[in-house]
Order: sequence, then structure tokens, then C-alpha cells
Amino acid sequence: MRTAICDMLGIDIPVLAFSHCRDVVAAVTNAGGFGVLGASSHTPEQLDRELAWIDDHVHGRPYGADILMPEKFEGKGQGLDARDLADRVPAGHREFVRELLARNGVQAAPDGPVRALVGDELNAQLLDVALAHPIKLIANALGVPPRSMIDRAHAAGIPVAALVGAKEHAVRQVAAGVDVIVAQGTEAGGHCGEVTTMVLVPEVIEAVHPVPVLAAGGIVTGRQVAASIALGAAGAWTGSVWLTTEEAETAPHTVRKMLAASSRDTVRSAGRTGKPSRQLRSAWTEAWDAPGAPGPLPMPLQSMLTEPALRRLDVLAEGGHAGAQELATYWVGQGVGLMGKVRPAREVVREMAEDLLEAAERLNAALGE
Amino acid sequence: MRTAICDMLGIDIPVLAFSHCRDVVAAVTNAGGFGVLGASSHTPEQLDRELAWIDDHVHGRPYGADILMPEKFEGKGQGLDARDLADRVPAGHREFVRELLARNGVQAAPDGPVRALVGDELNAQLLDVALAHPIKLIANALGVPPRSMIDRAHAAGIPVAALVGAKEHAVRQVAAGVDVIVAQGTEAGGHCGEVTTMVLVPEVIEAVHPVPVLAAGGIVTGRQVAASIALGAAGAWTGSVWLTTEEAETAPHTVRKMLAASSRDTVRSAGRTGKPSRQLRSAWTEAWDAPGAPGPLPMPLQSMLTEPALRRLDVLAEGGHAGAQELATYWVGQGVGLMGKVRPAREVVREMAEDLLEAAERLNAALGE
Repeated sequence: MRTAICDMLGIDIPVLAFSHCRDVVAAVTNAGGFGVLGASSHTPEQLDRELAWIDDHVHGRPYGADILMPEKFEGKGQGLDARDLADRVPAGHREFVRELLARNGVQAAPDGPVRALVGDELNAQLLDVALAHPIKLIANALGVPPRSMIDRAHAAGIPVAALVGAKEHAVRQVAAGVDVIVAQGTEAGGHCGEVTTMVLVPEVIEAVHPVPVLAAGGIVTGRQVAASIALGAAGAWTGSVWLTTEEAETAPHTVRKMLAASSRDTVRSAGRTGKPSRQLRSAWTEAWDAPGAPGPLPMPLQSMLTEPALRRLDVLAEGGHAGAQELATYWVGQGVGLMGKVRPAREVVREMAEDLLEAAERLNAALGE
Repeated sequence: MRTAICDMLGIDIPVLAFSHCRDVVAAVTNAGGFGVLGASSHTPEQLDRELAWIDDHVHGRPYGADILMPEKFEGKGQGLDARDLADRVPAGHREFVRELLARNGVQAAPDGPVRALVGDELNAQLLDVALAHPIKLIANALGVPPRSMIDRAHAAGIPVAALVGAKEHAVRQVAAGVDVIVAQGTEAGGHCGEVTTMVLVPEVIEAVHPVPVLAAGGIVTGRQVAASIALGAAGAWTGSVWLTTEEAETAPHTVRKMLAASSRDTVRSAGRTGKPSRQLRSAWTEAWDAPGAPGPLPMPLQSMLTEPALRRLDVLAEGGHAGAQELATYWVGQGVGLMGKVRPAREVVREMAEDLLEAAERLNAALGE
């Protein structure tokens, strides 16, 4: 197959796969797609290990890295450390989490090491690590990336992609020098805007032509990749579909929830990171979205509050704890309604390619060609 | 072009156009598509006149009618008249509207004739009228249509279509005997669910195969029709795009708002009809969605309360009343962001057909075919 993104990245099928799991990244890349490692939950040392592992497994085939560098976050430019940030989490918010857990029979997690999941210095370190590996694309979300990121990537000959949820944001990204726009609809798992993929993709394409645009949000099948190309996209950016592959490290209890979920079992809520992100609806999301719940904190404070609790819930849920099972959630898009079984990632890529071809034949048949 | 819906309805391009305006219905039908008159705001006498006018203008070409028959509404089966229903609108709700209008410098409308916009008897009368004309499809929304509607349509050889916003609803519709499912995403103007077109369409197709499914929600261009067919749909059901055609009777002030709107200028709110429906965001929708606003009333009470006020606002807005302009709104989908100018409906159909062909060529080129 040949689209602008196939040519730019040297791939056979115009499907990019975002995953926090190195095994998924390598499997998709080896199957002819393009794996993108979500690097933001890693320390620089962890990221270096993960990328080295990928290098060992993809034999020179192309892959990329995604470093979340929010344009706005608490303490930006103030040189704060994680401890300073943790002190900014209000006591009322901590109490809300403690009570929510207690109501469901879960003791709050003991205080672990405090980490900020975003920050100027951390971002710079992650970028250093990523650029020391043979990545072929660097992606970013939540605003225009720092000038230094774009300049350093370009100096290394690496195109920069940015995820956006609105046409106006795409225009700003292109003006800042971004090379690929990922137009991500509201149906996407994780951070997302309000506009749907079906509308956002043509709207963004019209606004930033001729910059290549990838369609994202809800895309878990080849027919949706075909639809994306029909809309004018250069390919698709996917995420949710890899969460239920054999290679994924998704908590087994969460995988079972996802396989059973319909497209109506997700919710766009700010209660996890401080910005609206789509995830499985659960007692946790319901509590944060209920009247009287404390408003979400700015990034990264909300995540510093919630991630330790949610990781603990995953462990307890897996052990059969009923309250933890009610609360457990994870980012996933509405496409979860089309995800019915666990498969190897390479098989998902192969089925996408077949389904894409069938979709094109269907369209040709309809047009009498 | 040949899809299941082209064959079923005898049309050249698989695009159905929902409109309250007879001129749009006739223009789309005459251009090779399929116009569907939204009949629910008409009295039986008005509907008869409108359909007779269409009959005179389409020269036997196929068109349809859409009668909104909500499965649940206030007073269903109780034989209430409009006056009885009007008495069920709480004084607090009336006061909320009066105050909202007054805050924006608008006097409440004088009491006009009271009409219920849905009801058992009205529905039966509208169905009688529709079936007395040579319609080729009858459509319904907001739940499974009454058994009598399906039976009478089938006895007359007329297929029945139903709009749904969730897979589970599609399955119920097919079990009840409905012949065509319109899978309408959350980006649609008017009543809509939460799942987006990109996800809902393949989900519904999988659930009701081989019943033909039309994609709806956000579709205003031919490339989106192509995407729909790639997803497996038999064609597209459209609505918003016709609101800014030359033939439409949309209030001119509202047309200007629509042409200026981006995809982010709509909101899904229950404040107009009592059920969530997508419309232009305005001071009116903000007020109904604000904390402390009265909860929406069941159908048809909310519409009985709001429609007279909104019609008055349209008139005042057109006359230059600033407060009315702030408040004025109308149903439209996120596709409004792709609607940039007023054109004749036949030109929209022609451009859709061209754009659809280009999209198919784009997909073929990507696949190297």
C-alpha cells in the first residue's frame, strides 16, 4: 500500500499503533505497520531499556516514540521536584480518594515513591533517550510541543507528529513546524476532545493541506482504516485495539472488562489526569463525575493522586476483590465495542490489511467499478 | 451506483436527505438521491398539502416520510388532549423560560394555540396521510415504532426505517420487523446517542447483518458517504447539510450562525425536547445545561414549553434583536464545521457524487489498484 505516511515512514500498511508495551510496538512494526511506544509513564532509564529491547527485536524496521509534553501543567518552568508538586495536592482530594476506596472495601495504598509524570526536566531527559535510538517518528499530545523538541527532532531527520482534537489546534501545530497531524476524535481512548473522527478528520485535512493527517479515534478494524483513507487521511493512528492483544500488559481483569464492554461502556472524564480522557466507565469514574466530587486538579497533580490508587486497584481486582473490580478502569475508546477476543498483535495487523482491501472492494462494487 | 439501498429505493446515489422542507426533499429526489420529509411538526392537513406538493414536483421519483413516534411519552395511551398535557408543564419551568428570555431582553411569547407535537392520535393521523401518498419509505425514531405502523407500511409494500443510536436498539428494531436501520452517531443534529458514527456503524452492521444499515451523523460530504460504504453501510442518511441550502426554510439568522460555526459549536442537550439532541450552542442551551436549571420534562412537554419561545426568538433574531440572537439555536450536527456556504440542494447532491468518486479513487490509489 502507498499513502503519504507509508512513504514517509517506510511501512507497508498505513496503521500506526500506540502502545505502552514494547512487545506490541515490535509486533506491529514487524508485521508491516508502525509501532509507537508511549514513553511518558517511564523513567529515562526504563525508556532506554525498552527502546533497546525494541531495537533488538525489530531488526531495523521503523518504529517511533510518544512523549507526552503538555503545553500547560502545574509548576511549569518553576523547577519544582515531585515532592513540591505532591504538596500541592489538596488534603480534600486525598480524603475523597481514601473515602471512595474505603466505601468499596479498599484500604488506601501505602505512600510509595513520589513521581511527577510530566515536567520540564523529565521531558528533556526522555527526549534525549528517545533521540539516542533509531526512532523514525516522535509524537506528542496536549498542545504544541516545546520548540526544542521540534528543532532537535528535525536536526536528527525525524518527523514530529502531534495529536489534536480540534481544527484550530491542528493549524497551530503546523504553524509550529509539526510534520504529521493525528486528528483524534472524541471516541478515542485517553485524552480527547469533543469532535468525532468522522467530522474532525475531513475538517483538519481541509485546514492543514498538504500536511499528512492520520485519523484516530475508534479505529480498531481495517474497514475503519479504509474509511479514514476515503476521508482523505494518510492512514490511521490506533491505540485501544492493542490493549487486548496477547502481547499487551493490560491487567487481565481489565482485559475481561474490555472484551465484555459495548461502545457505550466508556466515559470521557477528567477524573484521572485532570484533562478529559476516555476510559472504561466504573465506580471510580462515576464517583469523580458525580455532583459534589472535587474538581479535577491540573496536570500532573491529578495523576499523582490517582495513579497509585488505580494501580493498586488493578492488583486487588486481579485477586478477586469485588470492590476493586467495581472501581478498576483503564483508558480505552468506544472502539472497545468492536473488540471481542484476545489475539496476537501480528494477527490484528494482518486482519486489518485484509479488511481494508475488502472495504475498498465493497466501495468499488457500489460504484460499479 | 449500486448498493442495497439504491436497489431497494430505486435511487442513483445512496444518499437520503432528511428535511422539514418540501423543496429540499423534491430537489434531492430529483437529483438522484432520496428526500425524506420530516413530518412531525406538521398537522395532518399540513402534511397532506406538503406531500401533494412533492408529488407534483418529483414526477414519480422516489421519496419518503419521517414520522417521529416516540416509544415513550407523557400521557401515552391516556387519551389526553394538548390542553391536558400543557397543564402538566410545571409553573417553575414556565418561570425559568420567562426569566431566561427577560434576562436577554425578550418578552415571553403571548399564549398561542396549544399543540402537542407527539401523541397516539396525531401519529395515527399522520401515518394515514403519509400512506395515502406514493411514499417509498417511512422512517421513525426514538424507539421501536408501533406494531400498527410496521404492519400498515408492509401491507402497502413500503419498507420501514428506524433511527438508532446504539447497537442494542438496532437489534430490537430488527426483531420488531424494521427493514432499514439508520445508525446515527452522536455527532448528528437532533436526537442522538453517545456513540460516534465511526464506531456505531460497524457495530450495528455486525449486529443486524444482512439488514441494510445507513450511516448517519456528521455526514455532509461525499468522502464521508464513501467512508460509510467502506464501513459496510448501504449508504448515508443526512440532515444538517440541507439546512444551509437555498431551498431550506432555516431562519436566515440561523443560517449565518451555521456558516460561521465550527464543529465545536454544537452541544448535545436535553433542554429542547426533553431527550438529548444536538443543536447550536447558544445562551439558550447554556442556560438549560447550567447547574440549577430545571431538569428537562418528558416528551412532548419540554417541546410544548420551548418551541413557541424558540420560534419567537428566530423572528426577533432576524429583526436584529441582540438578546434573541444570543439565544437562538437550531438542531444541527458537528458536520456544521464543514458547511461553509449556501448552495442549491441539487448542487450539493452533485458535489457529493463527485466527492464520493474521488474518495474511492483515493482509496484505490493507496492500495495500488
